[in-house]
Formats: sequence, structure tokens, C-alpha cells
Amino acid sequence: MKKKTKNVNAAILIIGNEILSGRTQDKNIAFISNWLNSKCGISVNEVRIVPDIEKTIVKNIRSLSKNHNYVFTTGGIGPTHDDITAKSISKAFNVKYVYNDEAFKILKKYYGAKKFNDGRKKMAKMPKGSKLIYNPSSAAPGFIIKNVLSLPGVPSILNSMIENCKRYLIKGSKIHSVTINVFTVESNIAKQLGSIQKKYKKYVDIGSYPFFRLGKIGVSIVSRSSSKLKLKIVQKDLFNLINSKKIKILKV
Amino acid sequence: MKKKTKNVNAAILIIGNEILSGRTQDKNIAFISNWLNSKCGISVNEVRIVPDIEKTIVKNIRSLSKNHNYVFTTGGIGPTHDDITAKSISKAFNVKYVYNDEAFKILKKYYGAKKFNDGRKKMAKMPKGSKLIYNPSSAAPGFIIKNVLSLPGVPSILNSMIENCKRYLIKGSKIHSVTINVFTVESNIAKQLGSIQKKYKKYVDIGSYPFFRLGKIGVSIVSRSSSKLKLKIVQKDLFNLINSKKIKILKV
Repeated sequence: MKKKTKNVNAAILIIGNEILSGRTQDKNIAFISNWLNSKCGISVNEVRIVPDIEKTIVKNIRSLSKNHNYVFTTGGIGPTHDDITAKSISKAFNVKYVYNDEAFKILKKYYGAKKFNDGRKKMAKMPKGSKLIYNPSSAAPGFIIKNVLSLPGVPSILNSMIENCKRYLIKGSKIHSVTINVFTVESNIAKQLGSIQKKYKKYVDIGSYPFFRLGKIGVSIVSRSSSKLKLKIVQKDLFNLINSKKIKILKV
Repeated sequence: MKKKTKNVNAAILIIGNEILSGRTQDKNIAFISNWLNSKCGISVNEVRIVPDIEKTIVKNIRSLSKNHNYVFTTGGIGPTHDDITAKSISKAFNVKYVYNDEAFKILKKYYGAKKFNDGRKKMAKMPKGSKLIYNPSSAAPGFIIKNVLSLPGVPSILNSMIENCKRYLIKGSKIHSVTINVFTVESNIAKQLGSIQKKYKKYVDIGSYPFFRLGKIGVSIVSRSSSKLKLKIVQKDLFNLINSKKIKILKV
């Protein structure tokens, strides 16, 4: 019986001047994308990084939400003046920006009534109708509204919350991937690799990525497909190419 | 005499399935952005990461090129079938995708006539009218056409080429930045920080970023401005806030 392939995709919107200015090296893109790929069969097909400007966030949420199954945002849901993600998403969807009762209770309990100041209360405000993404690290929850899931920017906190996104996601077909690392230069195999890609273009994506290791130049040949069988067939062609050129395969 | 502030901005377009899939952690965004900020007074105000799909690259080049002073692309200018950046940029600007004579000569000399195969020749093809961005690491040049500068994806090679972009760029006013690291939580200072930002919003951007260090929670307060004087004034207000709350400043 043939299994039907279901493509589910997502975009990631990184919100924050600190990433754009180069002050902070983003670590969330690779983490979210790997998790979506391996755990949910969801492919990320676009990422944007934008500053803390309401108008810009609103515009990007609208367009990404329309063109992808899911949008993940990171950053801008903390207590300070530059945290404007929740308010901007409310505006993007023309819904009210209000206290979420459940989030309010969680935060009040976490901080205690006396220390529950305005900054902390702000973290309970989100688009009306949002559902919570629980935060086991520092209480302040993320939220989902329509197909947009909002997570914080601090990688350790985001990482601890990601499993709590799962209940809101429809799974796609798992994308399998095989990597062959060889000691050669890309231009030595470019032509034949192009022919192999052409031959299997309906089923398999082949990428070629140079690397430097142990003082030598090499190439990672990465094949990706939802069919394990098709991947095996492509690997056979790739090994034939590698053997015909007498290229050394890297022992990992 | 008052110095006029000149805002020059850029977008970065990262091209490559390996970044989107999470297989490879991008390192070029922070590097390019830091370099543009510190060496050229140019602010990056948008980043996009897109797959190796011609239609997508064409669309993004057109829109980013229209809305920013400069666009930097990384990735997709190597010898293999998935390297389609140069061809896509040609299409975006409706110019021919042709051999660049100078690039052809450089590559032929580098590889020697005998080893100058089709894959290597491909790296000399670019949009007609391009000027070269020289590559001191591995010969294959990047290029600039209109306001789009194309660089390779391998960070070490990109890093070695970045200074060669300078001749093509108009400098903006340098953005100065001061960071104060304190041991507190954001919500403890959120309200007052918001007031300070409001007071100086015309001249200074204040960002607040939580961190974990030495087992403690802290906040980096980052102020950015083209005026050193204005930055000093804001710092004074920030130190008053920190002292009034008896917050410990982190010794770096």
C-alpha cells in the first residue's frame, strides 16, 4: 500500500534588534527547525529576522501566517518596553490585547501576590483567544493564536517549552536524510551530482556542502526524501560516482 | 557644528536548504551585521533565509533590493547544481547570466587550464554587468550587481572577502553602543526602563536582554545611538535607576 506524503510547512519569525545588530548569535532557528523536522515532519521553508517595530511585526505576521501552515515567533514576550510581540500579533489579527486569565494565575502564583508587579503582569497579556504554551523553566507562558505560536527568545527557556507546542501541530510525513562525507572538492563531482539530482528530482533533494576538517577540504552530500527506499536508490548512485572517481570517504 | 546623521541600511538574504533544515547553524548573519555596523555605519534591518528555489530567490531579491540600500546574499555561488544564486539574481534584474571575463581568467589561472572543468567554469558565470568581490581564500569571486552583493556561504571564505565589499558601499553614521550588565531580573526594572526609553526615544534605542552567568540571572541593558553625548546622558539615568534599586553591576 502506498503511503500518502503529507507536506506540512512552517515559517520562523525571529523578533529582536539584538539578533539583527549581530550582538547576539541566533541559536533558535536551527533548534526549532531540527525539532520540527525530526519530531513533527514539518519543514521550515522561510525564516525572517525583524526589529522590534510594531508595524514591521504586524506586516510579517500577516504575510507569513497566510503563506505557511504554522508560524513560530521567538523573542519579545518579556516584561520590558521593547517586548511588543504579543501586542503586535493582536493587531495583526485584529483581536484585543488582553490579560489571559490562566496566564495571570500562573504568574501570580509563581511570583507571589506581593511581587507580581506591572512588568510581570504584562507577560500575561496576549491576543484574545490565545491558548497557552506552558513554560517549565520560568513560568511565563508562550501562546498560540490561529496558526502562530509565540515563544521567548532565550534559547534555554525556548528549548524547555518546545515539546509543549506539539499538541497544537498536525504532523507531516517524516523527512529522512542521509549524509555522505567525502574528501574531494565540489567541482570534481558537480557535473555527475547534477545528473543524479536530475534523475531523482521528483523524490529526493540532494545538497552539496563544502567543509574543512583535519586540514583537508571535503564535501557533505546530503540527500533528503520522505521515502527511505528512494534514498537507498540514490545512495547507490552516489557511491558509484564516489568509487568511479576514487574519492576517499571520511570515516566519522 | 552639528554633524548630520546619515542612515544607511541593508538586508541579508541567506540562501540554502542546509540552514533552513537546521543541519547547519548560520554564522554569517551576526558576522556581516557586526562588520556593517562597526566598519561601515550600516544597520541591518531585515534578514531572510530562503531555500534553493529560483522563484523564491528572484522574488526576495526584487523586494529586498527595492526596500533597502544594500542587499547581501550568502550561499549558492559554488559549482554544484544547487548553486543557483547568480542565475536567480540575473533573472531578478532581467539581465543575462553570462561568463564574467575577469572571473573566468582568475579561475583559469587558479586551477590551471587542464583542471578548469565545467563546475569550476560555472563559478565565473554571473549577472551581466557585475563587478567582482575578490576572494583571497579560494579564488572564486563574489559579485555586486546594482545594490546586491553576493558572497559564498562558507563562513571562513566569506570572512576573508568582506573587506573587499567596502569599496562598493556608502558609509553611514556610526552607531555607538553601550552595554551595562546587572544582576537583576527584567521585571524589576521594566517600568523605569520604559520611562527612560520614552524620554530619549528620539535619539537612543534601549534594549533589555536577560542572561544566565555564574549561576545567576542578569540583564544586559544595551543603549544604541549615533550620538555619543546622548548615550552618556542616558547612561547617567540608567545608573541612577540601578543605584536606586540597589542592583549589583556585573564586573566583567
